[in-house]
Amino acid sequence: MTTINAYAATQAGGKLEPFSYELPDSLGHDEVEINISYCGICHSDLSVLDDEWGISQYPLIPGHEVAGTVAAKGEHVTHLEVGQLVGVGWFSRSCLTCDQCMGGNHNLCASAEGIMLGRPGGFADKVRVQSHWVNALPDGVDLSDAGPLFCGGITVFNPIIQNNIRPTSRVGVVGIGGLGHLALQFLNAWGCEVTAFSTSPAKEDEARGFGAHHFVATHDAAELESLTGSFDMILDTVNVDLNWDLYINALAPKGKLHLVGAAQQVSATGFPMLVGEKSFGASPLGSPATTRD
Amino acid sequence: MTTINAYAATQAGGKLEPFSYELPDSLGHDEVEINISYCGICHSDLSVLDDEWGISQYPLIPGHEVAGTVAAKGEHVTHLEVGQLVGVGWFSRSCLTCDQCMGGNHNLCASAEGIMLGRPGGFADKVRVQSHWVNALPDGVDLSDAGPLFCGGITVFNPIIQNNIRPTSRVGVVGIGGLGHLALQFLNAWGCEVTAFSTSPAKEDEARGFGAHHFVATHDAAELESLTGSFDMILDTVNVDLNWDLYINALAPKGKLHLVGAAQQVSATGFPMLVGEKSFGASPLGSPATTRD
Repeated sequence: MTTINAYAATQAGGKLEPFSYELPDSLGHDEVEINISYCGICHSDLSVLDDEWGISQYPLIPGHEVAGTVAAKGEHVTHLEVGQLVGVGWFSRSCLTCDQCMGGNHNLCASAEGIMLGRPGGFADKVRVQSHWVNALPDGVDLSDAGPLFCGGITVFNPIIQNNIRPTSRVGVVGIGGLGHLALQFLNAWGCEVTAFSTSPAKEDEARGFGAHHFVATHDAAELESLTGSFDMILDTVNVDLNWDLYINALAPKGKLHLVGAAQQVSATGFPMLVGEKSFGASPLGSPATTRD
Repeated sequence: MTTINAYAATQAGGKLEPFSYELPDSLGHDEVEINISYCGICHSDLSVLDDEWGISQYPLIPGHEVAGTVAAKGEHVTHLEVGQLVGVGWFSRSCLTCDQCMGGNHNLCASAEGIMLGRPGGFADKVRVQSHWVNALPDGVDLSDAGPLFCGGITVFNPIIQNNIRPTSRVGVVGIGGLGHLALQFLNAWGCEVTAFSTSPAKEDEARGFGAHHFVATHDAAELESLTGSFDMILDTVNVDLNWDLYINALAPKGKLHLVGAAQQVSATGFPMLVGEKSFGASPLGSPATTRD
């Protein structure tokens, strides 16, 4: 048997304590074992630790922003090599045969397995996951930076792909936290005209530093109202309900209000959406192919 | 001068009475004059007659489902011939130079003119409109049937195009009224697997006659709940608020709930949309190019 040294909480709200578990020496045929160099921490780690979603199992080893190297691989894994730099995010396995997996949308597989839900996560020295969910990292990447790309990074990159955002698009980002920082950098690099929305005027310098060309303090409803028809996409990264009508008003015709934060309730007046052919979308993380992209 | 004989109401809620108005003998350079053979009647005629949207001007000549023949054309109109069978719908003019018009989305032009808003509509012997909004009809079309294609028809056809619906798609249609009848026919002809949703079980035979393969009586919440993950698009043609969460639940991953009815308020729980990458969209009528299609 192989001993994995981890940190776990034994109950909702419990402290993380050293915890070890045993795995058979031989890997599953499609598995990769990773020597974890770093693991990021995300608000979802806290939500799951505290069982806020009612789906946690204890002892619970959190961690879903893994960066490390391939320690070992199962007999059918041919696309990764021992020693290679890799990362893993929210998902650790999917069925590979349902319509969603076969269509390239593995993140929408109804039986996709969360790495820290009912199985051990990444706050550990090693972790084993299905090879298809292991992302190769290019040589030279700093592993201490890489973990969040597989959670917050893909979460905000995926809407750029799903909504066909182009370098000529005008995009707003609501919320300048962990997701927002990554969104501003991706969108700026994508060539877009980028506007940061925040309740905190003090975040303006930081937002501009991450790539925002414009900054809107969202406590100023008059400024929001003046932005009628301005954005091809507004990416909402916060987990509180907004005055959705104000943001829909700020969308250009065919504009998309896209949620990646877990808002409780979306609610909007139908007529402005209809007249402007606007839509309200949402997405969870992203597929392995989009993550590679 | 040319005298146009029409029907108009002189105030909100007023009766339609014979009414005539004068136009100069010469047409605007980009205009077409149509001899109207038939004009459909739509619920929006009633809404505008009664000034329900607060944008009506009186005397008001309704009518926006025009079918007829080209009577005359302005000096710069080269793509239509006198005597040709044509139809006109909701819009009578747009700027032709804004980003939306230049992008092929003339129906989203901020200055698009409604045929019966501040100008005379189609309950008349003739009407003049910008030639770009005059749709050629194929020889042999029955003009008494054609008018609704330019309002209800394009309204339900446009979401098929906008959402990239394919013959292999599974689509639901909510509301088996004027829009629903046309939607069922288009979607059946498109090759889709079509489900009709109605509050009236008595409409089942009618819905199947128009092309529905399945029928769901929507007062049966248990049946709606059992449809989890079933539809690539649900097209909502009614103008009342629904239990949106039930319909979002019935969407497959990446499914689209699309409104063409003027619902007052859309409201849904965010998390199921996020997990399933589902969206809420809406659209008004369609562009001239989509209408030609």
